[in-house]
Amino acid sequence: MKLSNRILKMQYSPIRKLQHYVDSAERRGITLHKLNIGQPDIETPKEFFEAIKRFNEKTLAYSNSQGNSKLIQEFINYYKSLNISFEENEIVITNGGSEAIQYIITTICDNGENILIPEPFYTNYNSFCEMSNVEVIPFLTKVEEAFKLPKKEEITKHINSKTKAIMIANPGNPTGRVYTLEELKILEEIVEEYDLFLIVDEVYREFVYDNIEFISCMKLQKIHNRIILIDSISKRYSACGARIGLVASKNLDVMNNILKLCQARLCSPTLEQISAIALLKTPKCYLEKVHDEYEERRNILYNGLKSIPNLTLYRPQGAFYIIVRLPIKDADDFAIWLLESFSYNNESIVVAPAAGFYATEGLGRNEIRISYCVNKETLKKATKILMLALNEYLETH
Amino acid sequence: MKLSNRILKMQYSPIRKLQHYVDSAERRGITLHKLNIGQPDIETPKEFFEAIKRFNEKTLAYSNSQGNSKLIQEFINYYKSLNISFEENEIVITNGGSEAIQYIITTICDNGENILIPEPFYTNYNSFCEMSNVEVIPFLTKVEEAFKLPKKEEITKHINSKTKAIMIANPGNPTGRVYTLEELKILEEIVEEYDLFLIVDEVYREFVYDNIEFISCMKLQKIHNRIILIDSISKRYSACGARIGLVASKNLDVMNNILKLCQARLCSPTLEQISAIALLKTPKCYLEKVHDEYEERRNILYNGLKSIPNLTLYRPQGAFYIIVRLPIKDADDFAIWLLESFSYNNESIVVAPAAGFYATEGLGRNEIRISYCVNKETLKKATKILMLALNEYLETH
Repeated sequence: MKLSNRILKMQYSPIRKLQHYVDSAERRGITLHKLNIGQPDIETPKEFFEAIKRFNEKTLAYSNSQGNSKLIQEFINYYKSLNISFEENEIVITNGGSEAIQYIITTICDNGENILIPEPFYTNYNSFCEMSNVEVIPFLTKVEEAFKLPKKEEITKHINSKTKAIMIANPGNPTGRVYTLEELKILEEIVEEYDLFLIVDEVYREFVYDNIEFISCMKLQKIHNRIILIDSISKRYSACGARIGLVASKNLDVMNNILKLCQARLCSPTLEQISAIALLKTPKCYLEKVHDEYEERRNILYNGLKSIPNLTLYRPQGAFYIIVRLPIKDADDFAIWLLESFSYNNESIVVAPAAGFYATEGLGRNEIRISYCVNKETLKKATKILMLALNEYLETH
Repeated sequence: MKLSNRILKMQYSPIRKLQHYVDSAERRGITLHKLNIGQPDIETPKEFFEAIKRFNEKTLAYSNSQGNSKLIQEFINYYKSLNISFEENEIVITNGGSEAIQYIITTICDNGENILIPEPFYTNYNSFCEMSNVEVIPFLTKVEEAFKLPKKEEITKHINSKTKAIMIANPGNPTGRVYTLEELKILEEIVEEYDLFLIVDEVYREFVYDNIEFISCMKLQKIHNRIILIDSISKRYSACGARIGLVASKNLDVMNNILKLCQARLCSPTLEQISAIALLKTPKCYLEKVHDEYEERRNILYNGLKSIPNLTLYRPQGAFYIIVRLPIKDADDFAIWLLESFSYNNESIVVAPAAGFYATEGLGRNEIRISYCVNKETLKKATKILMLALNEYLETH
């Protein structure tokens, strides 16, 4: 009764794998500030819950497999407000961005084919590729270079006959990088020249700081037909538990085939789709307020971390994560030590060791990812705890 | 920009592929009785909606990846009431039974390995296998033999070095077969002898008629470690749109590895998990009433169909489907004709052509699946429409 090699090869989530130590520390009465997961503490718009409460059908039936058509229309309106045009048959609703990723990979890649991804990247890209026996070929972006995409040749040298796509998150998780038009143009050139798809995860689109203009890949008109977009309401509206995401593409071959997968799993949650319609109608000021809140948090966290000696970090311009290189050897060991052996005023922090965000063995071992989707006071405390903990760890290790 | 062979090979759902013809008939003002899908018209217990409305957290956060622990506990209690014992680490909550199927296949099978399934079977088993490049090896069960499992040798002759599991639905969809202890014992012998897993989909467990005792595979103590159970609240509580299912197994190797997949997709819908807790506490009389209602519908449909000449069918003992062999050549053509060219008093019916429920090319072409999860009056009308339609079709084809 051997299990599959694909599942045995797959890693536990580096974001969630410390749970056992977390539970144990909390049982000992330690208050933990959870900087490891992207679970915002921001309130979900009340419109969502009101819509849930208004539901008055007697039977909670399947929705259609493509997704609730009113919700699809609402997304079309949302994109229109960003000057991005989609038709109804160019969108399918998925169980969060997660299912979107999985369905795209399955739809374009066969066993043994590969996808190029700049590392560090959202760790679950790896898991979904492994599920489908698709190889991730990473190319490196560095904290010292603000996670800028490398030169064209540095990317294309990784392409081989089994390469089907390049995949990016913009803004980047865990990097916070917001790609410039120049960088996107390089990708445009490459996917055209090498006949590839460009998979773009824009779930953090609304969280871009410093008055930088966000450029959606959908603006790359020349390669419209090659772009497959991943989106989600989870972070945007602080509705992670709703599990509503989508795949969108101008490529109808992709969309028509992805529908087979949607039919196989029947539908996304019916009630949440109905409530997501209300969510997308939330006044724009909600998103503006949340945006400003995250920008302030970014400032507080970044400035706090800058005051700790010997850290290497880049001031993220988007999303709500920061990669920090620590003056230590093994961030895994440090993260566990924080939970098992350290506390300050009976408090400690949970961080995500960053090695899990790299595909290249050995990279990211001395880095952690910190999420700043917790409030400002917590971030201030957490920064102080990190500083004190680092001092003690360096003295004792 | 070629898509994957796996997606190109995959079929559109035979249950949902007639949608285009359905839309068109409805636009012409035809009232359609939808016997093609397993969407019950039974009311979801009010406990579910009450629980949704009681939710008063400000943020709709992720639940944990394994599933809401109170919901898992409620399922443990439910199984205990059936004399089946599970511990907390033996259950993960999934996005409906659909995700459960997919995760089990991924966890036990590599590319090119196979699973034996008695045909006809729930069509999406095929889709999930194709997604993962896993082969379905069918062995035939026949309507004339009440879809009884064949003799041991008829099953084992299909096993090869790449076979990882046998998979059954009990009660069967689309067959309505409820397996006897004798049949289950054959499977027990085989999986032990050939070192296989037994995957059992028991989502229709509560719908077994004629006072037959339902025997869960979990009662096969000798192979406890080999059994992987699929379950769901969708049909049981008429809550299809909630997308709450589960995988359960006494094999912790399976469960620990399946957790990696759960972590990759983060979580099942948070609100529905909370509401499912309430659902599982629904007084037993709800299920009894629903059971009796389905049994009456089965009787009405079966008797109605028996009165139509030249049909071959088996009186289903469970679930809410019936496979009917028609005196025609091409059920696909007939199903489309019903939507395009036939109506009686401006009404017609939607049926699922059964070929999609077989893996063997050519089988089931003259069969349809009828779902009896619509009310009794509709079933009576639908039977009459089918009789009239068949007469007309036979005259004109």
